[in-house]
Amino acid sequence: MKDIVENIPTYEDMLEAHERIKPHIRRTPIRTSNYLNELTGAELFFKCENFQEPGAFKVRGATNAVFGLDDDQAKRGVATHSSGNHASCLSYAAMLRGIPCNVVMPSTAPQAKKDTVRRYGGKITECEPSTSAREATFAKVQAETGGDFVHPYNDPRVIAGQGTCAKEFMEQTGGLDIAMAPIGGGGMVSGTCLTLSTLAPETQIIAAEPEQADDAMRSFKAGYIIADDAPKTIADGLLVPLKERTWHFVSNHVTDILTASEEEIIDAMKLTWKHLRIVMEPSSAVPLATVLKNTDRFAGKRVGIIITGGNVDLDKLPWTLGA
Amino acid sequence: MKDIVENIPTYEDMLEAHERIKPHIRRTPIRTSNYLNELTGAELFFKCENFQEPGAFKVRGATNAVFGLDDDQAKRGVATHSSGNHASCLSYAAMLRGIPCNVVMPSTAPQAKKDTVRRYGGKITECEPSTSAREATFAKVQAETGGDFVHPYNDPRVIAGQGTCAKEFMEQTGGLDIAMAPIGGGGMVSGTCLTLSTLAPETQIIAAEPEQADDAMRSFKAGYIIADDAPKTIADGLLVPLKERTWHFVSNHVTDILTASEEEIIDAMKLTWKHLRIVMEPSSAVPLATVLKNTDRFAGKRVGIIITGGNVDLDKLPWTLGA
Repeated sequence: MKDIVENIPTYEDMLEAHERIKPHIRRTPIRTSNYLNELTGAELFFKCENFQEPGAFKVRGATNAVFGLDDDQAKRGVATHSSGNHASCLSYAAMLRGIPCNVVMPSTAPQAKKDTVRRYGGKITECEPSTSAREATFAKVQAETGGDFVHPYNDPRVIAGQGTCAKEFMEQTGGLDIAMAPIGGGGMVSGTCLTLSTLAPETQIIAAEPEQADDAMRSFKAGYIIADDAPKTIADGLLVPLKERTWHFVSNHVTDILTASEEEIIDAMKLTWKHLRIVMEPSSAVPLATVLKNTDRFAGKRVGIIITGGNVDLDKLPWTLGA
Repeated sequence: MKDIVENIPTYEDMLEAHERIKPHIRRTPIRTSNYLNELTGAELFFKCENFQEPGAFKVRGATNAVFGLDDDQAKRGVATHSSGNHASCLSYAAMLRGIPCNVVMPSTAPQAKKDTVRRYGGKITECEPSTSAREATFAKVQAETGGDFVHPYNDPRVIAGQGTCAKEFMEQTGGLDIAMAPIGGGGMVSGTCLTLSTLAPETQIIAAEPEQADDAMRSFKAGYIIADDAPKTIADGLLVPLKERTWHFVSNHVTDILTASEEEIIDAMKLTWKHLRIVMEPSSAVPLATVLKNTDRFAGKRVGIIITGGNVDLDKLPWTLGA
């Protein structure tokens, strides 16, 4: 028996979100590579959300939340905690509407992500790099500012916004056998489930996760949420645990969750940089890493992979650090 | 008085080339960045030829030459000398048609470019890194194989093929005040001149060149071809001199040639990786480097920049080498 969860967004919420955010986001292009197709035996399509202006898919959910606020709340602005891209994207969306944005970030977040938040006018309060510390610091900031809390993923407005990516992906490719995204808190995976369970229920949804932060995979197998407090992985966008709304979608609609080691993630990242010639984060390389180690499962299939973000410290690339 | 040069391609040759190569090349997307627009004061459009399957615009001219061969010559294949991308792209085009390709490359060419040639079945003969050594070695290879010589840029089929990029660029942007490309041998700049002098004669054509390999700029100012034998620059795609057919276009249609230092090129390269989130070669960063140091000239203009290639050694990025 499933728990009853309130405020689960609907397919209609996703359609409304798409109309609301279209003027403010990019319809990102699809990249393909004959070389990667030959290497994997699959037909791969990569949706380049790293090409959003602030460099990540999270601008979709953030923009949906910000532009859906009534004028009174908009004056007090928004507030959030985030390992990085949600913070940048919420700051960006707030800047577009001209309202304040307060964000709590772990002190270990990449410098590139902090720079981006500040460039968009977001005010950062740093905290220790654990989920518990992050949530405690946030409560304080939120009480002080009165900003509307836009959770990075456990928010129906955010999930509906992320779901617009899968809608574009199906329109641009004409259909997929399998849709893949990395899973951390599960916002993009949930949005993908939300959209495809109505639009293309025959499309499998496979999430990909670092072995070293595999709490979503363990949750999926156990049948309830398992949360790690401070996992360590190069895929710094995937450190956070599932929450009840993303668990709702993951438990009901995800086909499987596959994992990859740190080395496999780095190899897939470098391979993508080399052959797709795009700059993307380690987190975005996890799906391809899992395809490369499970080629039998993907051979002959039309596989859509969401490249979730492209904010990375160019001075600290994993393959130049001897990682 | 201008010299009379034979076999200058026409606008109709470019249109025919486009029809011939369309099934084999990608109509590459345009990238934009609000951040780079604010930084420069210009409206910048980047045409991502680094997204061609073999990673460079040169697939256009190479494919036009290869698919224009009659069946008898096709059996003997093609041959060329190149600092890298023309070699990869000619090998790729020959592979698509299933014919042999012999290439002479400088021993100093980036490993990534050699790997790419071999992956496409091209046979490499190495030579010393000077124009004179390259031409001598090539004469020997060409005599032995009987392959049709496809010069990397001083070939009317190649220039007509490269001109198809500017045609797409104008279609995709709806028009530009200024079109920019880096200049080495001048193949892309010549193709751009060929196309725009008919299609958009009001559009300025500005070429960009490394200070340390500024022979095209000196030629442009002197009014005759000045060739350096072995210039040194990080922009390894731009080491070769103009030849009579590219000089024809450069001398007749180019508005200006601007230069940038090695440091300015590296800065512009890193800026592009960070904000457009694309992987591109140092050569492709030269136009943006010249825009950044001449912002008055470009402010308020619609400026199209051709990102010429994306084949770069990821293990030897200039900003990680302390350059």
